[in-house]
Amino acid sequence: MSAFEWPIRVYWEDTDAGGVVYYANYLRFLERSRTEWLRSRGIAQRELAATRGVQFMVLGLSIDYKAAARLDDALVVTCDMQPEGRTTAMFDQKIWRESGEGSDPLKKGVRELLVEARVRVVCVDEKSLRPRRIGEYLS
Amino acid sequence: MSAFEWPIRVYWEDTDAGGVVYYANYLRFLERSRTEWLRSRGIAQRELAATRGVQFMVLGLSIDYKAAARLDDALVVTCDMQPEGRTTAMFDQKIWRESGEGSDPLKKGVRELLVEARVRVVCVDEKSLRPRRIGEYLS
Amino acid sequence: MSAFEWPIRVYWEDTDAGGVVYYANYLRFLERSRTEWLRSRGIAQRELAATRGVQFMVLGLSIDYKAAARLDDALVVTCDMQPEGRTTAMFDQKIWRESGEGSDPLKKGVRELLVEARVRVVCVDEKSLRPRRIGEYLS
Amino acid sequence: MSAFEWPIRVYWEDTDAGGVVYYANYLRFLERSRTEWLRSRGIAQRELAATRGVQFMVLGLSIDYKAAARLDDALVVTCDMQPEGRTTAMFDQKIWRESGEGSDPLKKGVRELLVEARVRVVCVDEKSLRPRRIGEYLS
Repeated sequence: MSAFEWPIRVYWEDTDAGGVVYYANYLRFLERSRTEWLRSRGIAQRELAATRGVQFMVLGLSIDYKAAARLDDALVVTCDMQPEGRTTAMFDQKIWRESGEGSDPLKKGVRELLVEARVRVVCVDEKSLRPRRIGEYLS
Repeated sequence: MSAFEWPIRVYWEDTDAGGVVYYANYLRFLERSRTEWLRSRGIAQRELAATRGVQFMVLGLSIDYKAAARLDDALVVTCDMQPEGRTTAMFDQKIWRESGEGSDPLKKGVRELLVEARVRVVCVDEKSLRPRRIGEYLS
Repeated sequence: MSAFEWPIRVYWEDTDAGGVVYYANYLRFLERSRTEWLRSRGIAQRELAATRGVQFMVLGLSIDYKAAARLDDALVVTCDMQPEGRTTAMFDQKIWRESGEGSDPLKKGVRELLVEARVRVVCVDEKSLRPRRIGEYLS
Repeated sequence: MSAFEWPIRVYWEDTDAGGVVYYANYLRFLERSRTEWLRSRGIAQRELAATRGVQFMVLGLSIDYKAAARLDDALVVTCDMQPEGRTTAMFDQKIWRESGEGSDPLKKGVRELLVEARVRVVCVDEKSLRPRRIGEYLS
């Protein structure tokens, strides 16, 4: 079964003077995809905080930059979640460049892998920041 | 005739510790809408720089914040361009909150105006930064 | 009497693919200077919210971009406050490039004006967002 | 011997609606410290690109978030570089919260570890992006 995918366009705000996307901004793209994956399962995070008093926090991550995204690139950010114990989960995420405008015509129709990341997330009580069972929200 | 519209979702990255969108980040939303308005007219900015050697620069802007956007809000950013002389143009832009998830049920179906802005843009030669006639690209 | 000044260095994160500081990021620089001006008067905003229940919000601003800042530039951001009525204040702010490494040797010792801005701020109750008298905090 | 240290203040722009620094923004802090470490050794990156045609790119990183930074926090970001082969280097970096205003009085004078990161960097030719010997610049 294929992973969840979320399309993202690269704007001026995402780039730096090197002409490519600034390395920290890929983490924004990763989060947008995780948020939309949650939304696709009926979970809106502001509502989750308001009604259940829980939120998700990133405990740590590792990321490899394989190729750089540029202005106007059309990207796809995937999101694949594995539970880890009762309170944490690991997200395997990839960022791909779609072929299309501006891309190499020889690569037409071929996605290029730009970034691979693994992000560990914990579910916590919004007030106490104590871990809470994640299974009630994600499964 | 109705103005160009571009939908934008509010993510964690856009908010600040006040619980609302950080005031500078609305300028990102305005630029995304201008960029997509250009794209809707067949203009991709990286390509424009590469093939014609021109780019657009913001000369100045004024912005009024009327109400704050929050996490998970679905926004719409409009874009309406008026030429000013040969090399500059003025963009009238508004940011609206769509009704929907999390919004006041009494406001169902009603857009709420959050931000009004006027942004003056000049077309310049990418190398010399000298003004160039905008009419060849935008009209 | 001279205005308050706050030094800011331009990093990769501040720039975009045009090779200069992204237009929205100057608003970050303006806010850092306002925050440090407050701190220089003994006001830390997190503490102000916790102990007095008030915060400052930007109501609107106008900004003119005269020249662009680049990576590694050493900037100075000034801050000059004028009260406007009981609950709002206007900040006149300028961003200058210091001469120095990388700058034109002929301009040695001369500051170059990059940005001029006027920012209207209101003091509000943190919960109700109702205006509160600013004079107790700023005068 | 102690590592290089760079002080960083947390502003509104760095935080998110969770009331703490947004997870991607710690990567900005890490980069500022690496940039200032380079500058402390006489290397300005814009100049390095202009005169030698090389720049540094992040190949990958791992990061652990141990505690969250908040608005107004005074942080210190350390930077310790180890060469890896001829073209790459590994930076061990930590982000600490300084005691002081707003911090727990019992922790007065004690730094609290917030973030640990390892960042792999490669030196490349600016045009071809081919790896270049790092030893000429960093040693």
